[in-house]
Amino acid sequence: MAVYTHLGAEDMAALIARFDVGTLVSAKGIAEGVSNSNWLLETTGATGIGARFILTMYEFRIELADLPYFLSLLDHLAAKGCPVPRTIHDRDGNLYVTRPGAQGEKALALIEYLPGVSVSAPTAGQARAVGAELARLHLAAADFPGTRANGMGVAEWQRLAAACGAEGLARIDPALAHIVASELPRLAETWPQALPSGVIHADLFPDNVLMLGDVVTGLIDFYFACNDILAYDLAVTHVAWCFDDRTGAFRADVSQALIEGYESVRPLDAEERAALPLLGQGAAMRFAMSRAWDWLNTPADALVTPKDPMGPAQRLGFYKANPGIFA
Amino acid sequence: MAVYTHLGAEDMAALIARFDVGTLVSAKGIAEGVSNSNWLLETTGATGIGARFILTMYEFRIELADLPYFLSLLDHLAAKGCPVPRTIHDRDGNLYVTRPGAQGEKALALIEYLPGVSVSAPTAGQARAVGAELARLHLAAADFPGTRANGMGVAEWQRLAAACGAEGLARIDPALAHIVASELPRLAETWPQALPSGVIHADLFPDNVLMLGDVVTGLIDFYFACNDILAYDLAVTHVAWCFDDRTGAFRADVSQALIEGYESVRPLDAEERAALPLLGQGAAMRFAMSRAWDWLNTPADALVTPKDPMGPAQRLGFYKANPGIFA
Repeated sequence: MAVYTHLGAEDMAALIARFDVGTLVSAKGIAEGVSNSNWLLETTGATGIGARFILTMYEFRIELADLPYFLSLLDHLAAKGCPVPRTIHDRDGNLYVTRPGAQGEKALALIEYLPGVSVSAPTAGQARAVGAELARLHLAAADFPGTRANGMGVAEWQRLAAACGAEGLARIDPALAHIVASELPRLAETWPQALPSGVIHADLFPDNVLMLGDVVTGLIDFYFACNDILAYDLAVTHVAWCFDDRTGAFRADVSQALIEGYESVRPLDAEERAALPLLGQGAAMRFAMSRAWDWLNTPADALVTPKDPMGPAQRLGFYKANPGIFA
Repeated sequence: MAVYTHLGAEDMAALIARFDVGTLVSAKGIAEGVSNSNWLLETTGATGIGARFILTMYEFRIELADLPYFLSLLDHLAAKGCPVPRTIHDRDGNLYVTRPGAQGEKALALIEYLPGVSVSAPTAGQARAVGAELARLHLAAADFPGTRANGMGVAEWQRLAAACGAEGLARIDPALAHIVASELPRLAETWPQALPSGVIHADLFPDNVLMLGDVVTGLIDFYFACNDILAYDLAVTHVAWCFDDRTGAFRADVSQALIEGYESVRPLDAEERAALPLLGQGAAMRFAMSRAWDWLNTPADALVTPKDPMGPAQRLGFYKANPGIFA
């Protein structure tokens, strides 16, 4: 959550001149994004385009080859009426621009600014709205031509678990090592192969949803988007929305509203519904493993505070013990 | 440069309800401020008040007793037409609100959002405009009733130098220990006592000035403002604007423009002009000492990167060797 690169007014003005958005009026580095730097920009505007934008500089992790998938997906979804930020193309029609820097060339994209704030303790009404928007996203992306494998799928959970090692996991919490040893092989073995697939967001935590009251005004941060099981995306969203952030307690009303909201737009078939307890366990394992790796590998002087892997790990246990919540 | 405290949408909405500014539309943590957290807010607005604001939470360093001085100074200057952000008073007329937190009660202020961007390599035209605005600020504050001693005056340079210790300074750079040993006693002994005084900004670096082209749209960050020698404020601004940030080279055209701009609004008298070389050395010493202390005392895992004290230290030597630049 930081701005890693300093861009002065002169640098920023030169960058903005590559887009047909008028001239720079304001630029504030914003404390969002883990692997990129972001600025909230205001410009004098151009016909047909609003005057506020988010400028993102990709610092780490993102493969340049994936950028066209992420950015053209935003365009595709926005054109279908999904509340996602449009990509502002440069004067030559490119989805992003590049800029030389001390650590090599970096890519930057300009996207639409959307109103709304991220909730910390979602209500059932908010979860219902998010469920419906997630389903709309799945339907709207059905004819999106791009494809991208899920880089955070089962094989990656296994790789991360191995990279942490049993003793690394035990250093975080002995229970974590135990959960991984007992559950990860079972999840890998029984992971569904034939459920309906398509483009998924794959990271729809409350941080990545902008809302005004019960209205979703923005779905953002598509940098884990990929092609995978649609109901898995609902399971990820379930892990992210249906437990109290402080106590970890399951919130039955929020859970029911999320699923009802989703099904009000895209009803689940019998196989998808039956798979939800397993998909939820997988989603929990995915975040437990990525957070465990970050926990063990974030330097003490990092700008980013790693998230506790035990939250998702406990949710995995909850899903296994309570498959009936999805019945 | 970070947001130290997480405020969720619900917290933020409750805070905003204490002001007559409508309801929350957007809130982005911004990467500004060393000793406070800042958010750029958009609201639905209220009559007579714009719909964008900066919310500041005071985290460290600021004495609560000083807040009324800083915030009412903004109101005073804004009412006189200076480009400074107005303080938005709460529904009871208070300049700031407080909020309980895990680390004790914290104060928050809501101030006006101003357009503009901070330049990195000022032109002479920009320096001229800044000089003129600084002089206007000095004149506009002449009847401001508040007073505050300069907490970063000569006595504080001496205290910081002693706290760093000769060996601490030498660890940063042997030249720094030498400069402090030879120059600080002389500065303390010869520091002017009878020059015209008033309210000064005391920290007018380019980061604290918002501009659009050659127009100053905002003077911000008044948290070092105090009552002290007016020409010293010009000297601080000179240290901050008239040297190339990368090479340290003196920029004669920018220097001349800054002083001409200042004098176009408030001409210096003979004593002030004669004192500028000494005031410049003092201003350089002030930043060399505060940065030296930060350099030695910033933990490796801090969110803030300390600034190099050798930049100002070299400027001190330049002013001593070249008093004629102010003639």
